[in-house]
Amino acid sequence: MKISARNVLGGTVKNVTKGAVNAEVTLALQGGETVVSIITNHSVDSLGLHEGSAAHAIIKASEVMVGKNVENAKLSARNVLSGEVARLEPGAVNSEVEIKLAGGTPIVASITKASVRALDLQLGNKVSAIIKASHVLLGV
Amino acid sequence: MKISARNVLGGTVKNVTKGAVNAEVTLALQGGETVVSIITNHSVDSLGLHEGSAAHAIIKASEVMVGKNVENAKLSARNVLSGEVARLEPGAVNSEVEIKLAGGTPIVASITKASVRALDLQLGNKVSAIIKASHVLLGV
Amino acid sequence: MKISARNVLGGTVKNVTKGAVNAEVTLALQGGETVVSIITNHSVDSLGLHEGSAAHAIIKASEVMVGKNVENAKLSARNVLSGEVARLEPGAVNSEVEIKLAGGTPIVASITKASVRALDLQLGNKVSAIIKASHVLLGV
Repeated sequence: MKISARNVLGGTVKNVTKGAVNAEVTLALQGGETVVSIITNHSVDSLGLHEGSAAHAIIKASEVMVGKNVENAKLSARNVLSGEVARLEPGAVNSEVEIKLAGGTPIVASITKASVRALDLQLGNKVSAIIKASHVLLGV
Repeated sequence: MKISARNVLGGTVKNVTKGAVNAEVTLALQGGETVVSIITNHSVDSLGLHEGSAAHAIIKASEVMVGKNVENAKLSARNVLSGEVARLEPGAVNSEVEIKLAGGTPIVASITKASVRALDLQLGNKVSAIIKASHVLLGV
Repeated sequence: MKISARNVLGGTVKNVTKGAVNAEVTLALQGGETVVSIITNHSVDSLGLHEGSAAHAIIKASEVMVGKNVENAKLSARNVLSGEVARLEPGAVNSEVEIKLAGGTPIVASITKASVRALDLQLGNKVSAIIKASHVLLGV
């Protein structure tokens, strides 16, 4: 399988909590971080997900926000992953930022050029990748 | 209203399943494919959606992923629509890919230039448009 | 067309900046806030958007994050809109939060129940609605 999502992160399912239509699935990444995904109950069943399942979190770069100094903030995003800027690739409107997490996992974010400037992003900066759980797909 | 979403796909509601706050709505497209959308119960009521309603699936190009050889993969995305690459328009960081589905419907995806390269996308390639149900809006 | 997006915010185009494939459009809302949208150049042309155009920002509730104490944080999200919690509607997995902006505009966010708890959201709390520009559709 080849998929356009820039972020395909291997891990193991830690928890599955089903609601009425949607389910919350927690994945422990190989690098040590935890990622939360919201998918439909139908998808949990279709993928046969349960505690201990091997699975991948699939995250499109355009779904990843970047934050600086977010330690004192409270964000509804279930995934706030700390790392540092490993690569910056400017574009006309959008730029690509690669963040290397503490456990070694790279996360690619697509944010506007204006945001790169506003956050004054430089290589090596401590930043967080911020991802809403509803933007995380899972694959097995 | 005219909207910026590149994908506005006509169809008929096949099913509406309400949860506590969210509902899952299945739409049969004119081209034969099925698209699943997750919207709030309030929106189902506001649009008066029920089985048999005419409705459109509205999908922003930046919410569409592209996959190759995903037949054996299991993905939580409820919408994995097969087609072939009909157009490629490169950008500085993001590129636009038009996929023509088997039933003739075109789907536009906005993915990174690096992904176009990584997937080695060429005109005529068999690919899938992958769309999470939570990214599908509906209109009547 | 009536759409399922819970947030359809009226405004006037202040600026359109085109890149290679994508454009950045700034909209001044009736309530006084500014909203930035990233859409394709094709959509700008198709909708005939230019400075002074009347347009709506269309934002699905599942694309809205909620933040508390984000004043000292730097976020790549181009839209960080201050307001206060006007309504909380719990669900099994996802809950709905209505935020009333300073100018009176209501914004609906769909976030997880766990996030409502983690942020200890109560009616009247000062919060921000956080929306990535790539998640803002426009309509005329």
